Amino acid sequence: MATIISGTGSIIPQHIKSNQDFVSNTFYDEQSELIKTPNQEIVEKFKGITGIMERRYADLEVNTSDLAAAAARLAIQDAGIDPETIDQIIVAHNFGDVQNGTIQSDAIPAIASRVKHHLGIVNPSCVAYDILFGCPGWIQGVIQADSFIKSGMAKRCLVIGAETLSRVVDQHDRDSMIFSDGAGACIVEHSDDPDQGILSFSVQSHCNEEAYFLYMGKSYHPQADDATRYIKMKGRKVYEYAIKNVPIAMKACIEKAGVEIHEVKKFFLHQANEKMDEGFIKALYKLYDIKDIPTDIMPMSIHELGNSSVATIPTLYYLVIKGKYPQHHLEKGDVVIFASVGAGMNINAICYRL
Amino acid sequence: MATIISGTGSIIPQHIKSNQDFVSNTFYDEQSELIKTPNQEIVEKFKGITGIMERRYADLEVNTSDLAAAAARLAIQDAGIDPETIDQIIVAHNFGDVQNGTIQSDAIPAIASRVKHHLGIVNPSCVAYDILFGCPGWIQGVIQADSFIKSGMAKRCLVIGAETLSRVVDQHDRDSMIFSDGAGACIVEHSDDPDQGILSFSVQSHCNEEAYFLYMGKSYHPQADDATRYIKMKGRKVYEYAIKNVPIAMKACIEKAGVEIHEVKKFFLHQANEKMDEGFIKALYKLYDIKDIPTDIMPMSIHELGNSSVATIPTLYYLVIKGKYPQHHLEKGDVVIFASVGAGMNINAICYRL
Repeated sequence: MATIISGTGSIIPQHIKSNQDFVSNTFYDEQSELIKTPNQEIVEKFKGITGIMERRYADLEVNTSDLAAAAARLAIQDAGIDPETIDQIIVAHNFGDVQNGTIQSDAIPAIASRVKHHLGIVNPSCVAYDILFGCPGWIQGVIQADSFIKSGMAKRCLVIGAETLSRVVDQHDRDSMIFSDGAGACIVEHSDDPDQGILSFSVQSHCNEEAYFLYMGKSYHPQADDATRYIKMKGRKVYEYAIKNVPIAMKACIEKAGVEIHEVKKFFLHQANEKMDEGFIKALYKLYDIKDIPTDIMPMSIHELGNSSVATIPTLYYLVIKGKYPQHHLEKGDVVIFASVGAGMNINAICYRL
Repeated sequence: MATIISGTGSIIPQHIKSNQDFVSNTFYDEQSELIKTPNQEIVEKFKGITGIMERRYADLEVNTSDLAAAAARLAIQDAGIDPETIDQIIVAHNFGDVQNGTIQSDAIPAIASRVKHHLGIVNPSCVAYDILFGCPGWIQGVIQADSFIKSGMAKRCLVIGAETLSRVVDQHDRDSMIFSDGAGACIVEHSDDPDQGILSFSVQSHCNEEAYFLYMGKSYHPQADDATRYIKMKGRKVYEYAIKNVPIAMKACIEKAGVEIHEVKKFFLHQANEKMDEGFIKALYKLYDIKDIPTDIMPMSIHELGNSSVATIPTLYYLVIKGKYPQHHLEKGDVVIFASVGAGMNINAICYRL
């Protein structure tokens, strides 16, 4: 008995927001002091560190739940299943639907309920709920689906990560350039083939001094309203925390799966920062005393898509599976790692055999 | 092997908001027409239907996560466990932390992360996440905990329902009188005693025409800002939906457990409306062709505590277990039903033997 991913889907919004589009912004630092570095230089430096050249923003009338439902449709189609046979719809997000021009998160009803509504699924035994777990929410949803399948509570789950971060960024904060919109989905289901599926997972929540490394805070603009808050990040702290803990979590997961590091064909890492992801891989191989890291081990979508939180990994996996990155090819039997880190702080990883 | 509730806790905010406190409000209907019925009459009628005489509001500086952590502390103490042994912290809510005087929901980090932070739990294997499932969120959290325990993913979970609805009500809407603040928590864990614990559960999500029976909408005040939204309810639709579906779900759960209706000692129902809860019980016994409903079968806290969403059932269970309602006494071996209904629309029920 195994838990497999039988279908994938992703929605990449059409609207491209380039780094150049931020050059006319006025940036302030955490102390609300105007940043005097010319914006062109800020943008170049930003690209150098994060790897992000452009990102996608949802159309103004489109909400998180719309992206989620559209990605779900593709995953359902890809798996070739009848949507009425889905036992659980699990949607990971952080802000619910934030309508353009408003500042309120709306999750009444839950985004999963809206997805079920959009898909027109009638079966009342198809249970729809949302999970909030920071950026690692989609992986956590897959882990929960695996548990439901193992316990006999479900046989087939739809797991979605969807977010419209463009609605919650502070345009006066350089970190606003990181964030983007998108949705990724997959069908996770029971399989009788014991040679494939989820081999292991590992999860960690660090909530002591780490709890507020990502938080909601007022705009950096000196005259900003205290009561309007945006996604904020203590970038340095996040980086140091992640680089220390993510490689350890991935190694624990690989060991639990009983596979060797050289068996891992690809790493699907949360797309938050290119340099950081490269650091994770270097540190992981170092834990195995390996200096020569295999080439093309880590597909990256961050250059074009930025960081869409819960949506990055299912989107990246979808793009690779569908052959959108010719240098990254997967076939049956290949072992891959999914790993993420984000608000909470939370870290998780799955070792999966196709 | 069984899944048991080994400890309970609840926080009932000190501040009492009586029906009389609403007499000076200006109420409008859905069409933003001034309601001409004298407020004293509105309030009396409200009390007649819902049973609510007063409700509790959290102190202004207290947030949902504070209530959640405080309830958790009591449950941990009651279970007599070391908090570092908790495998999963599951927090059900709908709005995250809504600071007094603001309109934004804040769940970065998730409320469960904040609870773990407040409790000072260091163990990184203690995974903290939030679930959004409308008012039935706490029961759903218990069902998820049961699945994790059955699948071997967890042995001990902390499941919390917490909400500060006072921060999201429209004071110009009569329905604002329904809602209150509070938190309830329990420790759910593995037990080797096969004679107790969760016997069965049933869950239903209806998301077709039902999806927006509860929703976020603008104030009924005619000059209200479109971009500020409040919890809104199509009361009649919710009532009709619930009265039709909740008794069926409870019966399915009882049958799945293999117990007889006369074995059920108490029903712990979501406290949304006294007349509706009485209707559920009547309809359920009618499904069994029973006309004489046992007395004291249904503890109620709604008169004093109103509807605190996800918090009502764990709070009510705590109050009964702790002997706060002398006419409701439980002992080992007793069978009880937990059942809820709310935004989504979602319905769930658990059949549990103490």
